[in-house]
Amino acid sequence: MSNGGGVASSTTHLLDFLEEPIPGVGTYDDFHTIDWVREKCKDRERHRKINSKKKESSWEFSKSVYDAWSGWLVVTLTGLASGALAGLIDIAADWLNDLKEGVCLSAMWFNHEQCCWTSNETTFAERDKCPQWKSWAELILGQAEGPGSYIMNYFMYIYWALSFAFLAVLLVKVFAPYACGSGIPEIKTILSGFIIRGYLGKWTLLIKTITLVLAVASGLSLGKEGPLVHVACCCGNIFSYLFPKYSKNEAKKREVLSAASAAGVSVAFGAPIGGVLFSLEEVSYYFPLKTLWRSFFAALVAAFVLRSINPFGNSRLLLPFILLGSTRFGKYPVLEVILVTAITAVVAFPNPYTRQNTSMLIKELFTDCGPLESSQLCQYRSQMNGSKAFNETPNRPSAPGVYAAMWQLCLALIFKVVITIFTFGLKVPSGLFIPSMAIGAIAGRIVGIAMEQLAYYHHDWFIFKEWCEVGADCITPGLYAMVGAAACLGGVTRMTVSLVVIVFELTGGLEYIVPLMAAVMTSKWVGDAFGRAGIYESHIRLNGYPFLDAKEEFTHTTLAREVMRPRRSDPPLAVLTQDDLSVEELQAVISETSYNGFPVIVSKESQRLVGFALRRDITIAIENARRKQEGIVLASRVYFTQHAPTLPADSPRPLKLRSILDMSPFTVTDHTPMEIVVDIFRKLGLRQCLVTHNGRLLGIITKKDILRHMAQMANQDPDTIMFN
Amino acid sequence: MSNGGGVASSTTHLLDFLEEPIPGVGTYDDFHTIDWVREKCKDRERHRKINSKKKESSWEFSKSVYDAWSGWLVVTLTGLASGALAGLIDIAADWLNDLKEGVCLSAMWFNHEQCCWTSNETTFAERDKCPQWKSWAELILGQAEGPGSYIMNYFMYIYWALSFAFLAVLLVKVFAPYACGSGIPEIKTILSGFIIRGYLGKWTLLIKTITLVLAVASGLSLGKEGPLVHVACCCGNIFSYLFPKYSKNEAKKREVLSAASAAGVSVAFGAPIGGVLFSLEEVSYYFPLKTLWRSFFAALVAAFVLRSINPFGNSRLLLPFILLGSTRFGKYPVLEVILVTAITAVVAFPNPYTRQNTSMLIKELFTDCGPLESSQLCQYRSQMNGSKAFNETPNRPSAPGVYAAMWQLCLALIFKVVITIFTFGLKVPSGLFIPSMAIGAIAGRIVGIAMEQLAYYHHDWFIFKEWCEVGADCITPGLYAMVGAAACLGGVTRMTVSLVVIVFELTGGLEYIVPLMAAVMTSKWVGDAFGRAGIYESHIRLNGYPFLDAKEEFTHTTLAREVMRPRRSDPPLAVLTQDDLSVEELQAVISETSYNGFPVIVSKESQRLVGFALRRDITIAIENARRKQEGIVLASRVYFTQHAPTLPADSPRPLKLRSILDMSPFTVTDHTPMEIVVDIFRKLGLRQCLVTHNGRLLGIITKKDILRHMAQMANQDPDTIMFN
Repeated sequence: MSNGGGVASSTTHLLDFLEEPIPGVGTYDDFHTIDWVREKCKDRERHRKINSKKKESSWEFSKSVYDAWSGWLVVTLTGLASGALAGLIDIAADWLNDLKEGVCLSAMWFNHEQCCWTSNETTFAERDKCPQWKSWAELILGQAEGPGSYIMNYFMYIYWALSFAFLAVLLVKVFAPYACGSGIPEIKTILSGFIIRGYLGKWTLLIKTITLVLAVASGLSLGKEGPLVHVACCCGNIFSYLFPKYSKNEAKKREVLSAASAAGVSVAFGAPIGGVLFSLEEVSYYFPLKTLWRSFFAALVAAFVLRSINPFGNSRLLLPFILLGSTRFGKYPVLEVILVTAITAVVAFPNPYTRQNTSMLIKELFTDCGPLESSQLCQYRSQMNGSKAFNETPNRPSAPGVYAAMWQLCLALIFKVVITIFTFGLKVPSGLFIPSMAIGAIAGRIVGIAMEQLAYYHHDWFIFKEWCEVGADCITPGLYAMVGAAACLGGVTRMTVSLVVIVFELTGGLEYIVPLMAAVMTSKWVGDAFGRAGIYESHIRLNGYPFLDAKEEFTHTTLAREVMRPRRSDPPLAVLTQDDLSVEELQAVISETSYNGFPVIVSKESQRLVGFALRRDITIAIENARRKQEGIVLASRVYFTQHAPTLPADSPRPLKLRSILDMSPFTVTDHTPMEIVVDIFRKLGLRQCLVTHNGRLLGIITKKDILRHMAQMANQDPDTIMFN
Repeated sequence: MSNGGGVASSTTHLLDFLEEPIPGVGTYDDFHTIDWVREKCKDRERHRKINSKKKESSWEFSKSVYDAWSGWLVVTLTGLASGALAGLIDIAADWLNDLKEGVCLSAMWFNHEQCCWTSNETTFAERDKCPQWKSWAELILGQAEGPGSYIMNYFMYIYWALSFAFLAVLLVKVFAPYACGSGIPEIKTILSGFIIRGYLGKWTLLIKTITLVLAVASGLSLGKEGPLVHVACCCGNIFSYLFPKYSKNEAKKREVLSAASAAGVSVAFGAPIGGVLFSLEEVSYYFPLKTLWRSFFAALVAAFVLRSINPFGNSRLLLPFILLGSTRFGKYPVLEVILVTAITAVVAFPNPYTRQNTSMLIKELFTDCGPLESSQLCQYRSQMNGSKAFNETPNRPSAPGVYAAMWQLCLALIFKVVITIFTFGLKVPSGLFIPSMAIGAIAGRIVGIAMEQLAYYHHDWFIFKEWCEVGADCITPGLYAMVGAAACLGGVTRMTVSLVVIVFELTGGLEYIVPLMAAVMTSKWVGDAFGRAGIYESHIRLNGYPFLDAKEEFTHTTLAREVMRPRRSDPPLAVLTQDDLSVEELQAVISETSYNGFPVIVSKESQRLVGFALRRDITIAIENARRKQEGIVLASRVYFTQHAPTLPADSPRPLKLRSILDMSPFTVTDHTPMEIVVDIFRKLGLRQCLVTHNGRLLGIITKKDILRHMAQMANQDPDTIMFN
């Protein structure tokens, strides 16, 4: 196209395939869906080029080696960065969280634990108290005890919580609106092939990291797990720009993002295998097996780095609490956040189970009572007076401590459940793994303690007689908490295998897997009875993203001809003929319609399909030709064939557009059941598919048509699918 | 077709879709490949029928509930059966294995451990010796010590080993030839859509179970892991016959088999998560996410049952040793087995590390030396005299015990590696997990002990100074053994994530994951440098199964028109026209060609494609019509259209074949790159695909054409692909 003369000579045009590509052809607009098949072809083409050149020189050879290793390099970098950032977030959030209660005089940058750890004057038993660490009441009022200091501490707690929350929501609002929420719904959509520019950019990464620390420290009932997946995916995206193999190919970039999401879950929970399964089960759309191995690697590197940075992290579950709620204050995000934070802080402070760091709470609830356990939950009577009841009957009678703990747990449960209604929709980074797990764990522990007491007072009941051997602990409340946590999280996210594996990796007991599975399965079935979509799918639907769920089955009997456009009442399909349009006519077709692409046919009479050309590519190619090629005017004939058509002698130079023509468009017949069409779209990642009848072109089906049709069949409003 | 009159009336023919199906249409011949798309459509059709009827009566409703639950039911049954069979095999193999050394006088059916366990006269230290248990020498010669009794025991050991091996190979040869080998290559092929009748049948199950016990007890160096996967898949296949949903649909049946293979690995290793990942990574071809959850369930049920049956199984790794060798005695399978068994028994008996049960050996090699360890491998000098060397330097000096052990280990390694060359090809059930792991573990332990000694004698070397703190154990030979085992198994099977997870579940230490990964990755890379195919893929290729590997990438630039048939020199494509063939002409086309199906076109002139009809279906339909429909003669016109063509008044009754016509055949254009075609075949599980150019039919590509083309591009003989 670039240098060939005006006359169509077959020899120059045979070289078309080798000509330099038109810049911009083959890229995508924001909020559009990528074509997986084309992207994969592009990558194989690139790979072949590098491979064929590699024997030419040692420079080309080292380039090919670099190319082959870049996949491992980028996942290693992503794993390192995710682990490092997660460690940083942990440490910073810890410090800020303790700042709500007081400050370390000897070194401002120490948190409570570190401050007293370096002190020589503390014993192990009183490791929480040391002269260097001053609560705000001590610092301002000069007294550590009494109602005045309690109120002062309460006030400062609320003051700091509000400051952190305000700063977080302000940063998100001003600098990076994409940094709010958990990010998992959007990441699922992006991985399915949608383009959202800037969602995984450096600004989002920076602001999300900072505001996650603030949001976590503010004491809101939110988890950092979802946001950490988003942070890891940002790292993956940013590092992929170092390698043209990944930055220039949207399909390959998504392979890196799959691995990055695994790394994110890995650092969030310290569960590398669970992270890989999460990536596989929950977020990834196309999961080639090659990615499985790389994801595993990224997950391990990330977990390893996190452990090296933060070896004394108080547990793998390290996250204060925030509330997942879904208010309709949407228009006033700052006010909304401040309000929810204030309520959270005011209500949470007096109750030890809500004031506490949520992951610590979960850990305490999971732990069974042993002789060394000092928790209030374990103040059983038998431990205090050593009566023979302990030896003779299973389990233990309760004591006032346990009763008080039960009451507080019940209040904490109600508080958490109520404030859970105010979701997730706050404009700060927020995950819901930890809050869901906490709710489930509290409920589970309450049931567990109740069962234990029942077994103690009624150990002759049939059900207990059968199971409880004399003298053995037949009820373990910690296990109930664990099962409750898994069930609750399973109900919210509808995760299955990955959830069980994550909890297994957290707790380390293979023997708990069976009760865990039963709980997760039950909660999934109960949840499915109310509606099949998990929280992420619901979120995707709410936002109108074009996400074709791989898990949902299409079960209707419609045929392709009922879904394709044009419908019966519509104007005929906008098509291009292969060699008798002028540039002007082509531009007219483009400006009159808003379709993203046009089928090219042999002639209007035969309707035999030749190929498919994208609107964006046609526009770019015409602009490019008019700028660079002489003699291309509005009257120039446009042709998609191999050879130029025979034209009158005085006609202007024709424009060859074969290089932008997709000569292998996907076609189905009009009789194809829609279930097959949906399957093809899902498995091959198509954007559109042409419909033929006995070899003639009839219409077109796009991904959006399918989503609309599915919404229609499910009696939903098809206009909720917004993008294309 | 059945009741409609001879005259083509449009009203009766509109009902065609509702007519009863012709029996036999839509089934497959042995050694043919299934059409996944068609199978899935059939299943959705069935599902819709049940769903639409379920409100009619409570009977129909309970049928629909039964149908919905049958998936869970069948995987539960499979898990239960696999677990029970694995437990049975463990116990029986244990007993037979001990029978080689002696017999329990008090109860014949007790193995050595159980025999002495019930005895009151033994102390813990001498728990292997008790009066009830008599070695053969004691029983026959009446003396327990001395060279005579050693030779007697040696002789009886060989005698029993040969008897077991002889019986095993005889049973396999006479009753179930499919029961030999590991079965994993065939299961991979079956899961990819190939039909091998009887491979998963009840006879294979029975004979494989019995012969596996015998083969294991005979002392051959084989593992029971692969065969257990085969046994589990047989259970899955047999139980699927209880449910028409699964028995009548080849694609659905493969979902059950995927779950069954996970259950098999789960019981083989006691690693349910590893089993699921193995099924996902190694054996499954189409792995819908629904299957992931069911596989996990089956794996857990199986592991649970196994543990209940055999709680005292000496370890999860429970398998004597056999030799994986690949001799060319193929024509004399019985002789071959006897010979290899004899050599194994003769050489193995004198060396404690080869006489021992292989899984016990692996366990011993994995275990680090602690103060209570009585193994010969741990007879370090410092433990005997308690010198201060132990406190001052890392690790321990060696003692004669360790030197002797090292020598025996080296001999065992050579023996195992040499006899490994005689593979896997023996006509008895044989797996290679355990032998590979044992070889790797021996090599790893040898290296580990050598490193330990090096660190002891040269603890001032740079490398040791850096890593070994004074007084700390810086070299753990057990870890070396573990890493060696994983590396060796990884090299043989090219498993990655699932292998690491299996070893992790076996050993339970998250901290070992990083060295394990590094080892597995290295061995995979080294192995890949010699050839990308693992042992299972090589086996599949050797047998010529039509297996389109999902992991291997197709990287050539060929186009569909270069691969399609007919080639340039070939006769034109055999096609059927939609309405102008007679029954006689149709039968002629079928008898003159051997193709499995024929495209149906509008007319020879236009070459516009209408659909695709399978040879088998046409034959069945014609036979059925001539038997059941009056007036169908050789001169009858055959038509695939909606309405009968207008015929002269005296012509015989026409035969409508629209119901067997696939009206949505897959098509690609001749310009489609083969990489896309291969992708479509893999992801959608096609059998064939038609090739068009500008809407005209040009040719056809079958799965076999693709496999041949791939073999050709890889410079292999394309005739190695045998079936279709």
